Amino acid sequence: MSLHSKNFLEIRPLPVEDIELILATSESLKEVSSRDIKKVPTLRGKTIINLFYEASTRTRTSFEIAGKRMSADVINISASSSSVTKGESLKDTAKNLQALSPDIIVIRHPAPGAARQLARTLDCSIINAGDGAHEHPTQAMLDIMTIKEKKGYIKGLNVAIIGDITHSRVARSDIWALTKLGAKVTVVGPKTLIPPYIEKLGINVSYELAEIIPSADVIIMLRIQKERHRNGFFPSLREYSKLFGLNLTKLKSAKADLLIMHPGPVNRGIELDPEVADGPYSVILEQVSNGLAVRMSLMYLLLGGITI
Amino acid sequence: MSLHSKNFLEIRPLPVEDIELILATSESLKEVSSRDIKKVPTLRGKTIINLFYEASTRTRTSFEIAGKRMSADVINISASSSSVTKGESLKDTAKNLQALSPDIIVIRHPAPGAARQLARTLDCSIINAGDGAHEHPTQAMLDIMTIKEKKGYIKGLNVAIIGDITHSRVARSDIWALTKLGAKVTVVGPKTLIPPYIEKLGINVSYELAEIIPSADVIIMLRIQKERHRNGFFPSLREYSKLFGLNLTKLKSAKADLLIMHPGPVNRGIELDPEVADGPYSVILEQVSNGLAVRMSLMYLLLGGITI
Amino acid sequence: MSLHSKNFLEIRPLPVEDIELILATSESLKEVSSRDIKKVPTLRGKTIINLFYEASTRTRTSFEIAGKRMSADVINISASSSSVTKGESLKDTAKNLQALSPDIIVIRHPAPGAARQLARTLDCSIINAGDGAHEHPTQAMLDIMTIKEKKGYIKGLNVAIIGDITHSRVARSDIWALTKLGAKVTVVGPKTLIPPYIEKLGINVSYELAEIIPSADVIIMLRIQKERHRNGFFPSLREYSKLFGLNLTKLKSAKADLLIMHPGPVNRGIELDPEVADGPYSVILEQVSNGLAVRMSLMYLLLGGITI
Repeated sequence: MSLHSKNFLEIRPLPVEDIELILATSESLKEVSSRDIKKVPTLRGKTIINLFYEASTRTRTSFEIAGKRMSADVINISASSSSVTKGESLKDTAKNLQALSPDIIVIRHPAPGAARQLARTLDCSIINAGDGAHEHPTQAMLDIMTIKEKKGYIKGLNVAIIGDITHSRVARSDIWALTKLGAKVTVVGPKTLIPPYIEKLGINVSYELAEIIPSADVIIMLRIQKERHRNGFFPSLREYSKLFGLNLTKLKSAKADLLIMHPGPVNRGIELDPEVADGPYSVILEQVSNGLAVRMSLMYLLLGGITI
Repeated sequence: MSLHSKNFLEIRPLPVEDIELILATSESLKEVSSRDIKKVPTLRGKTIINLFYEASTRTRTSFEIAGKRMSADVINISASSSSVTKGESLKDTAKNLQALSPDIIVIRHPAPGAARQLARTLDCSIINAGDGAHEHPTQAMLDIMTIKEKKGYIKGLNVAIIGDITHSRVARSDIWALTKLGAKVTVVGPKTLIPPYIEKLGINVSYELAEIIPSADVIIMLRIQKERHRNGFFPSLREYSKLFGLNLTKLKSAKADLLIMHPGPVNRGIELDPEVADGPYSVILEQVSNGLAVRMSLMYLLLGGITI
Repeated sequence: MSLHSKNFLEIRPLPVEDIELILATSESLKEVSSRDIKKVPTLRGKTIINLFYEASTRTRTSFEIAGKRMSADVINISASSSSVTKGESLKDTAKNLQALSPDIIVIRHPAPGAARQLARTLDCSIINAGDGAHEHPTQAMLDIMTIKEKKGYIKGLNVAIIGDITHSRVARSDIWALTKLGAKVTVVGPKTLIPPYIEKLGINVSYELAEIIPSADVIIMLRIQKERHRNGFFPSLREYSKLFGLNLTKLKSAKADLLIMHPGPVNRGIELDPEVADGPYSVILEQVSNGLAVRMSLMYLLLGGITI
């Protein structure tokens, strides 16, 4: 079995069978990182370029370790976004990189559609590691992998995504992935941070955190961008936290087997109280481990699924 | 066969047979990057340090991939030039690096002669990746490799180098390489950007682009440093582009098999119109691929030419 | 034989037999870097993260090469210290890294105790590469390895440590290591830069460089932080250098087999005159080579001392 595309750009058009293939492969490759010798020779002689136009130590490190555990050569390039203000420039950079015969380029870029543009230009495989507010598809894969690992299934689960839905690529990718797999998704946040008509994606909207806690099987908290409140999206961090942050008091009505997730890094005391971030509901660190497995499996599948 | 020096510092004193050995080795190693498993074990257990005092993602990436495809360990060091204002400091850095037993140090530095100074101080091999306005010898090697690949020979070809000749290490290295191999070189640019008496190198000078186009077999465009016009070297970018930039109209009188080259990154719309940069004459991306092959072959030859 | 701890955090509590085991292993692994193929497969499939909250190209490079020569995968993370103003943040970063299953995290951090905090939080091995003014234990190990290599023994040697004792993690780690092994240590510097009651560590104090030169077997010069004099710790660099810098004239009364050491980078003309830094007494570059061997041996010993 193999994926339907040589690229991994977006969850939106991804067939459910591709999602399931990635999940199954990730579950199997996760074991590599618990071995004494954490390395398989699968991608020896392959070149993976991490092309990051936004600083993200965590995501870059996850892809770098993923590539190295598969025995690929990994090259990190961190470009200041100032040098790529024009699309043409990204295309030029891309063509120059392609002339070095990489097998995969992992790109993070502030412009929505940057990964897709790269894929149109280049023959090698492209993995989208986040493109503006558009999609962050490996995050969605690790999120559903974590839910499936803990719950055994996705279909029919009540999943709430809480925070700044409008500006979140994580929310967008999660919504596509979760609805494809049959979860019942509710987005929760201040009206200023939820796009109008988002219900048309087949999801529910709530402006009241208390309303969704009792029925939620999974809560995905989004990271709040502190600078947004300067732009008037919410009155203050304190106010935001009071209304949409999670603490143990608010969780009294929660199910005993609730999962709390967060893409990291957590603003402690804002989205999540430390007792919640480190508490029994939290699966945040499992998400990080699963992210590594998802990235290993994507590299493996995109390069043709050579027998491990 | 082996090179006459343990270092690769300048084209100027390089024997023609060394140039030919590097070309032959590069042509043979180029094939590695088109394999499914793009890696040879040749330099396993060798340590290559990329010591870059000027930012250059492209050149650093090319050397890094070259080293990794040869199975060497590659260490990147990017030093801000501020910490090396004195020659003594570079010497200290170099001696400290040598104490770590590297096999090759690749150095890019804003001071002419920096690579040579390093070579005088150290026992390991040094590759000059550009030293001020002095030389950029791997660029010259990839340029002649590209010409030879496309034309089959160098001798007797009319090669025009266009732009800021005075401040260009690329021009300098290309002139040495091309004249050694018997090409007829003409430099073209505004009077303010061509050094006096440069004809003494056995080349021609022209101040008129139109004059050289009909007879040129190869045109090497140089990148214009936009800040130069502030220093009065040319009146404006628009004026420069009008006089010395290439567009399809100016190329109407060109030979059908003209090659257009550029060391990158291209200032699109200044030196080259996009239709030219991406057009049929352009071999810019072949230059990038050949740069990788040249760097692999230099690493191989400098470390003794162990059988591949 | 193996170390008593899974971490290498401080010299202070380290049993003498651990110091001796590290020394013996370092002496044996030093030979790897003089081989034609400078690589052993010992740590294949192990992941080492260099987590540097302070810029230090030299130390980071030493650890990176050490890891690669042992065949480990090495990941560099350089964090601006601004993102870790709170201890909680470091803990969060650490837990996230642990979720990626590293085997060793090498940490350099401006806060005393940062490495210890990491070790308390994580299961993987931690190596302290310098924590504020607290300790720099790999530096102490390479210092005593160098002394032992040159002198054959440590016990009974007169070792002077000269400079800013108060703010130096190198001084602190060296004092612990040297006194454990029976050396007679004297610290020398201006009164403003020597902590009161430091004699209680079993060492001597002098404020007069000339006084200690004739009897010294080893002089360890510390790097002066030029910004300290603005804070009133010493009147001027010129004054400091005159009183506590070493030049050939001052060394006329020295023993013929005196060793002069410095953790680097040297402020030439301040702590050491160039004739001294590059002169026959100096073993500064041997220190660098031994640093690499010490770091290879620690990685080896912490990961269980698998047969080489």
